Amino acid sequence: MDTRFARRMGCMQPSSIGEILRAAENPQIISFAGGLPAAELFPVAEVAAAVQRTLAEIGPRALQYGVTEGIKPLREWIAAEMGLRGAACGADEVLVTTGSQQSLDLLGKIFLDPGDLIITENPTYLAAIQAFQAYEARFLAADTDEDGIIPESVEELAGKHEARFLYVIPNFQNPTGRTLSAARRKALYEVAARRGLIVVEDDPYGKLRYRGEHIAPLKSLDREGLVIYLSTFSKIVAPGFRTGWMVASKAVRERIVAAKAAADLHTSSLDQLVLERYLRDYDNAKHVEKVRSAYGERYGIMDGELAKAMPEGYRWTRPDGGMFLWVTGPEGLDSLELLKSALARQIVFVPGRDFFPDGSGAECMRLNFSNSKPELIREGVKRLAALCSDLP
Amino acid sequence: MDTRFARRMGCMQPSSIGEILRAAENPQIISFAGGLPAAELFPVAEVAAAVQRTLAEIGPRALQYGVTEGIKPLREWIAAEMGLRGAACGADEVLVTTGSQQSLDLLGKIFLDPGDLIITENPTYLAAIQAFQAYEARFLAADTDEDGIIPESVEELAGKHEARFLYVIPNFQNPTGRTLSAARRKALYEVAARRGLIVVEDDPYGKLRYRGEHIAPLKSLDREGLVIYLSTFSKIVAPGFRTGWMVASKAVRERIVAAKAAADLHTSSLDQLVLERYLRDYDNAKHVEKVRSAYGERYGIMDGELAKAMPEGYRWTRPDGGMFLWVTGPEGLDSLELLKSALARQIVFVPGRDFFPDGSGAECMRLNFSNSKPELIREGVKRLAALCSDLP
Repeated sequence: MDTRFARRMGCMQPSSIGEILRAAENPQIISFAGGLPAAELFPVAEVAAAVQRTLAEIGPRALQYGVTEGIKPLREWIAAEMGLRGAACGADEVLVTTGSQQSLDLLGKIFLDPGDLIITENPTYLAAIQAFQAYEARFLAADTDEDGIIPESVEELAGKHEARFLYVIPNFQNPTGRTLSAARRKALYEVAARRGLIVVEDDPYGKLRYRGEHIAPLKSLDREGLVIYLSTFSKIVAPGFRTGWMVASKAVRERIVAAKAAADLHTSSLDQLVLERYLRDYDNAKHVEKVRSAYGERYGIMDGELAKAMPEGYRWTRPDGGMFLWVTGPEGLDSLELLKSALARQIVFVPGRDFFPDGSGAECMRLNFSNSKPELIREGVKRLAALCSDLP
Repeated sequence: MDTRFARRMGCMQPSSIGEILRAAENPQIISFAGGLPAAELFPVAEVAAAVQRTLAEIGPRALQYGVTEGIKPLREWIAAEMGLRGAACGADEVLVTTGSQQSLDLLGKIFLDPGDLIITENPTYLAAIQAFQAYEARFLAADTDEDGIIPESVEELAGKHEARFLYVIPNFQNPTGRTLSAARRKALYEVAARRGLIVVEDDPYGKLRYRGEHIAPLKSLDREGLVIYLSTFSKIVAPGFRTGWMVASKAVRERIVAAKAAADLHTSSLDQLVLERYLRDYDNAKHVEKVRSAYGERYGIMDGELAKAMPEGYRWTRPDGGMFLWVTGPEGLDSLELLKSALARQIVFVPGRDFFPDGSGAECMRLNFSNSKPELIREGVKRLAALCSDLP
């Protein structure tokens, strides 16, 4: 099996995310690792009612094949939601995907030839790196600071290299939790417009803001049709549905539909219909408010406990929303080694290096605060801080 | 967007299957086109009950992220089902996929470099051609007759060319409805074993046999671990779940899991859990029996009506199961042209040429009999036969 994919997979850890999810399934272990939302907040009773109504009213058609672009009423809900986010669009500009991970895969499929270059934040989302690596892409890591990716750095890279697109997570970024400021968004879009650079704007967390004001997405500035906007129901309803969406120009959309037809025909009919019915019958904004408030509380506890217990030389980000914060340890720290000792003390996190396309970041780690209840966050930070304090 | 995929998609019809599904949605049109199962037979009430039990007993975890290989109880059911089909395996040899279409896509991802060769039946499944073309594969069309693919033809092709794998649909093939005989399966496996040729055995229809005896799959002969077996719940429960499976050697399985993690993380948690619960609580064999009997009746009606009404020069296959029969018209017939007149008379089918990797088959058409009730089959065949009789 000496193909491109097999060659490349040989250099990769086999499915880091899978490993993390498996570790997180052990109830003995406190996991700050996975990017899981808080399951105890899922609207289970409402979903159960929505399923019953769907099957009672739509009947067998709810279990039949459907069209590749997704069911129209769900695309209509998404189009209205895009308006609330500041980037109004029509239902015919929306595509339903089998989660944002599939959106990334399909973008790789239509845009990438082996060796093609992508500009990303440094660090950036691990599973996006994996999705694009499956097409043998290479990465240009732009500089970032507390306000997110630095437009001048993107412009410099785009000037020197022929990049296929820029991949960016403007809100509560994975892994750092940082948010791209409004001024930066404008400047970044102008760079893209000047350079004719396609922007993939990945926004799974934008609705999970627990303080400060919403900032309109890059898509809202998109007079040239350069921005491909991705989001998902995973964080605002539940991830088990594997249902996300993409908003893109007509030319991109047509190719994505063809690629998706070849990849899985369409996203689960039942999942789409149930989501749509749930969104129609219940006030999801209220549900999201509950999620935001819980994540805000959990963030506050994690930040407070870190401040109390972490030894000298460790600092971390202070995100305004989302699910992660990002710890940078002292120079010379190897967070992958630290993880091995951490497992023995039944606390896990994601070591930083996997998020850096350039292989740096050994002294960093990503901590998830959405998926542990307050008492576990307290206990987990204690274990982690004790471990860091014990280091030679 | 001058990438490989965009270049290739330019030569393809944009999502033929999508177009067909859209046409089939118009209730005025009698459709022999799509490969849709009979929705009125879907176990809707049982699925509704299974959803309630799942959500009541498992709760929020039913809507959470899951592991890439699929939930264990469903893999256990599949392993037991593989035993019933004559190819027993363990749950750890099974992978759940987002429908068989995703299995094809993932196989493309791990096996295919641009220009790689695949041996197929001629004709073969349209959407498999599309899935593999997305990786710029080329096709070697082996000869077929009433008993399916001819092993000597495969051996000749495998001797002359370095093929990545053989793709074959042994039961009630799509599009011809033909079945590979037991003797041919043995001979074909021996060819594969001699040549070290990987065999992708696609078996969506095997359980839909309405006459004759079950024939054990190629996988049952697989002492060398060369056979990758694909099947799906689409035809034995319902396709809206987008849930299928793959049984393969450890080396292939590991790579497919990595590829699937990058493609969609995992298949819908809710769909997997509901299917598993449904299969545990109800007698699906009895359900499949009902489906088989209905399809057998519909096949009989279509075959009988064709015999009564079709003009001289048309012949068709007589499948023992599945959902399709295959009509070959007189030399010079252009079934794509015929489809245009057929649409005006509100009857549609799939023209043959799309199924032939070598571009032949203009005089052929695929007729689906599973998704039209008896009276519609009678009326549809009348329209089609009138149309063929009117041809100059």
